[in-house]
Formats: sequence, structure tokens, C-alpha cells
Amino acid sequence: MSVTIAIDAMGGDVGPAVTVPASLSMIRQHPQLHLVLVGLQDVVNSELGRQDSYPRERVSVLHASETVGMDESPAKALRNKKDSSMRVAINLVKDGSAQACASAGNTGALMATARFVLKTLPGIDRPAIVTTWPSLNGHVHVLDLGANVDCSPELLLQFAIMGSILVRAVENKPSPRVALLNIGIEDIKGNTTIKKAAELMRNSAINYCGYAEGNEIYTGDMDVIVCDGFVGNVALKTSEGLAQMISRQIREEFGRNVLTRAAGLVALPVLNAFRKRVDHRRYNGATLVGLRGTVIKSHGSADALAFEYAIREALTEVRNEVPLHIERELEPMLPPGGARH
Amino acid sequence: MSVTIAIDAMGGDVGPAVTVPASLSMIRQHPQLHLVLVGLQDVVNSELGRQDSYPRERVSVLHASETVGMDESPAKALRNKKDSSMRVAINLVKDGSAQACASAGNTGALMATARFVLKTLPGIDRPAIVTTWPSLNGHVHVLDLGANVDCSPELLLQFAIMGSILVRAVENKPSPRVALLNIGIEDIKGNTTIKKAAELMRNSAINYCGYAEGNEIYTGDMDVIVCDGFVGNVALKTSEGLAQMISRQIREEFGRNVLTRAAGLVALPVLNAFRKRVDHRRYNGATLVGLRGTVIKSHGSADALAFEYAIREALTEVRNEVPLHIERELEPMLPPGGARH
Repeated sequence: MSVTIAIDAMGGDVGPAVTVPASLSMIRQHPQLHLVLVGLQDVVNSELGRQDSYPRERVSVLHASETVGMDESPAKALRNKKDSSMRVAINLVKDGSAQACASAGNTGALMATARFVLKTLPGIDRPAIVTTWPSLNGHVHVLDLGANVDCSPELLLQFAIMGSILVRAVENKPSPRVALLNIGIEDIKGNTTIKKAAELMRNSAINYCGYAEGNEIYTGDMDVIVCDGFVGNVALKTSEGLAQMISRQIREEFGRNVLTRAAGLVALPVLNAFRKRVDHRRYNGATLVGLRGTVIKSHGSADALAFEYAIREALTEVRNEVPLHIERELEPMLPPGGARH
Repeated sequence: MSVTIAIDAMGGDVGPAVTVPASLSMIRQHPQLHLVLVGLQDVVNSELGRQDSYPRERVSVLHASETVGMDESPAKALRNKKDSSMRVAINLVKDGSAQACASAGNTGALMATARFVLKTLPGIDRPAIVTTWPSLNGHVHVLDLGANVDCSPELLLQFAIMGSILVRAVENKPSPRVALLNIGIEDIKGNTTIKKAAELMRNSAINYCGYAEGNEIYTGDMDVIVCDGFVGNVALKTSEGLAQMISRQIREEFGRNVLTRAAGLVALPVLNAFRKRVDHRRYNGATLVGLRGTVIKSHGSADALAFEYAIREALTEVRNEVPLHIERELEPMLPPGGARH
């Protein structure tokens, strides 16, 4: 099945020097993939000119005259930048020219624009940001990672159901294990919102497995962990900071003197294997789930390999028809009596 | 100056087999320290009998007939266990026989009991849990770590002030840098509570330095990071889980085959130096700050070395008169017009 993905070529800290090589690498690997590179025509074409040969019939460039800054206010970007690379890429999904779009641009602006242009799926009040985290048992999907600061119990239930459907569709697991992030696993822990959300999840058709504490993200056996966007974003960023500190400290210890540097040389292949295993670039590509269309957000600081993983995530979700699954399966999974606002 | 600390000898996953050796190790190192080991007399004495000689005149045992289970409800423990090791240890602080107490017991029960027996300092609505986290620049104090699930802006301000006074008293920093944990550093980020808390902090006498994202806990240059107890607890536990995963994966990579095991042997001194540097036991000992007295909470799974660090934290705070500083300095640090409920 031929798939077309729109790429916001201007998004991210680097822009075309990252998005273009990543796109061509994906094009070479996937013969049925078509990409539309959206952005300043001259800049994108000039970057394409610097690359090795590629199947030109599957790569097109679409001009967009504006770009959204990484620190620009989402509301202003939505109001004033009608011809931004981000907006034009999302428009392609809206009008059916593309089945998905991938952007490393401003998260808030991407979410606001995608929501405005594509709208949410029926039964979904607000989209969420979900991504795959590495864990001792493989990996786990965590949502929301920052789109929704305050969440009602009903919204958390919608996240749980969307996460469950996503994992089922993409990973072929019949009954993904879903947990609610809390500060203890006993029933008395948490605030009213958490307790109410747990009750809704227990009465829904998802495979709800109770509360999970923060450590279980990495050491537990869940497929989906649900939290509000504030908590999820803090957990994600805290993890990034800790990983950065540990990796820097390992380097420092091996760089201490001649002996430790020699030990580092001997240990290098092992350390590299470890580094590859926990390479966060392989987990790049968060889904804005709950929209009428597939939109993938790449980390702004992604390099070409990382951005390639974001495009790969878009391709996987298109092939597995994630939005269609959510649309079809949401209603039957809600608790009897409904849990809408 | 002679200092007496009450030890909840029965608390923690292990109890006296950890608390007693840790206590004696501290007694040997600090000639002016006196410890009262509170718990089941026979059990504590029998554990003391197993230890090498120690200065007996500085160690006493006080019988308490009950123990609080690690999963017991805080409310029930408070109501029914009037002669628990935890309660009796806190009573010693209340009546002035001890200047501080340290416990590895049930966090909720310890907080509820300490609050009931000791009461909060004037101007403090609720105590918080604060501890030191390692960071690239040394370390940082983070609070609250789980005592308060929902926090008003006024409560977050109280945490910020207490954290600031604590760091100033214990570390001799004249003007500790305080940040508010948020999901972005721009003014528009966060919910109403966070924005209001930021405004209160800006108008207070603390050295408020703006928002910090999760990664800045480990890579930033703050002295104090403030958040509500739900978010703080998730950040703490998530960090524990990630550290556990990374350490397991490093072991796995070095254990893969004969060659990697040989590399591991060569790298062992460096890996051990690294392990020592990030050893979480050195950061054991959280303060229940805001009480009329010093109460230190050790991790329930602490071993003797870790529990020793918790007692050391109690000693440091007593020597630096942390509760007295908070009592004296809180009022002048509040914003003009006050920020009480």
C-alpha cells in the first residue's frame, strides 16, 4: 500500500539539514513511501541538491512561505502564520493528499494547529501526546506528555482508551495492560481526580491493572501508563536530565587519568552497545493521538537518525490505521452509562 | 554541643538489623551524639548484643510495645498505635528529651504522627518532605516529595521559603536559588496554580529564579526546586526506576560473553567509582520540614549505610537549628500583604 507523508521540513532546531537527509533515508528504505517536503522551496531544494541520488518520483517539495519559531506563542502562530510549513503540512492531511504529517517544530503550535485544522475524533475532548519509553521489559507507552495540564477523570479515561487502542493496533497485543500513574499503589493514594479516573477505568472495557508508581514506568510490566500532561512532561524531562547526568558522569570517570582512559578503551565496545541500547533517538516520534489524522511530533533537537524514527512512527501508524481504530473502538470501551462531560 | 536523637529502631523493611548497626556506627564517629533506640526492648537489646563494643553511656533503649506496618493506614496507625516505636520516638522530640528523630517506617504514618504530636511551625499550613538530589553541579533540594497531593499557590510559596531557609542554614549559602517546577520556562506555561505561585514567589524575599523543567533538577544550577507532592513523588520514583534500569542494562552488557566480562574486569575500578558517586544511599534521609522539631524519614529499604546517612542528616539539621530558623525567618520572607490562606 502506497503511503504519503507530509514533512514539516523547516521544523526543529536545525530544520532542512536534518529533515531532508532523514526523509531521503526513509525513502530509500521504503519503496511504497512518498514524501512531501513542505517549507521554503529554495532552502529545501538546495538541501536536496546536496544529497546523494534518490528516487525523485517519490519526493516532492511544496512551498510554504512562513516558519513557526520554536518559542513562538501557539495562539499567535495559529492566528498569524497561515502559510507556515507546519500548517501547510497539516492541511495536506486534512485534504487527504497525505495520510500523516511529521514535524520537529514548536509542540504547542503543532498541537494547536493540528487540533484546529484536523479536529478531534468523535468522543475525544482533547488530543494527547503519547510516546514509547524504553523499559526493562521492552517498552511502554506513556500519555499525556504535556498537551493537557489539568485533566478531568473523563479525560484520563479517554487517554487510557486511546493508549490501549494504539498499542493493540500497532503492536498486535490483544489486551494491553493499562495503569494509572499515582504516588502509591494502595486504593487510598492520590487525589479525587485520580480515584475517580481509576473507578472509570475499572468499569471500562480496557484491561485496567491499577495504579503504577513512577519507577514502574521503567521496571514494570505495563503496556500503557496514563497521567496528566503536567506529570507526564515532568517525568519525561526528569528522565532526560538524569540520563544526561549519568552519561556525563560515566564519561568523566573514564576520562580521569591514563589508567581509566585505558580501561575505557577496553570497555568501549560494551559501552557503545549499552549506549545504542538506550539511544533515545530510537524512541523519537510522539503521536498527537485523538485527532482525525496522524500527526507525529519529533523532538526539536532531533538529528537525522532521530527524525527518521519519527517518520517511521508516522508510517507505522498509517499502516495500522490508528485514527480509524480509535474512532471505531472508543464508544464500546467507555463504561456503561458513558463517561462524557 | 551534645545532641540526642531518637531512633525508631523498628521502622523500615528490615528493622533493628539495619537501624542498630547504623546507630552504633554514627555513635562511634560522633563523640557528642547520644541515641535513644526506641522499639521492642528484647529485640533491640538482642541486636545490640550482636554488635562490637560501643560507648554504652551514649546509647539507651526505650521500650515501645507496638510497631507500625509499612502498609498500615496512617489514620489507623495514628488512632490505634499510641505505643508504637515511631510515636514514642516522636514523643521524645515533643517533650525535649531528644532534638530530632529518624525513622525508616511508613511515610504516611510518620507524617501524620509527627504532625499530630509536634504540630506545624507558625505560618506553615502543612509540612513537606524535602531531600537532596544529586546533580551535575553538586546537588539540589526538591520539595514536596509526596506529603501534599494538591497544593495551593500559598502552600507552594511556603515550601519555597522553607527550602530556601533550610539550604541557607545547612549549607551556609546566603541566597539560595529557588525555582518552580513547570512544563516549560516561558511565562505562559503551566496552570493557574503554578502561575499564581510564581507571582507570590516573585514578590517574596526569596531568591526566586523562575520556572525549571524536569531535566534541570539534574542539569541545572538551582539550590531548591519546588513542586506539589504528586509531581515530586513521580519525579523521584521515575528517577529511581530509570537508574535501576540503566544499572541493570550496564551489568547485562558487561555480562554478555567472555570478552565483555573481561572488559568489565578492567573497567571495574572505574565503574565502582561511578557507582559510588551516584550511590543513592548517600542521599538517604528526607526531612519532614515545617514541624516544631526535626523528623527525618529514611527510605524503607535502606541498608545500614543508608540509614546512617539519615541519622547524619538529623544531626546536621539539629546543629543548624533548622526549625528555629524557619520559625524566625518565615514571616519576613512572605510577600507584602501576606500570602496566608
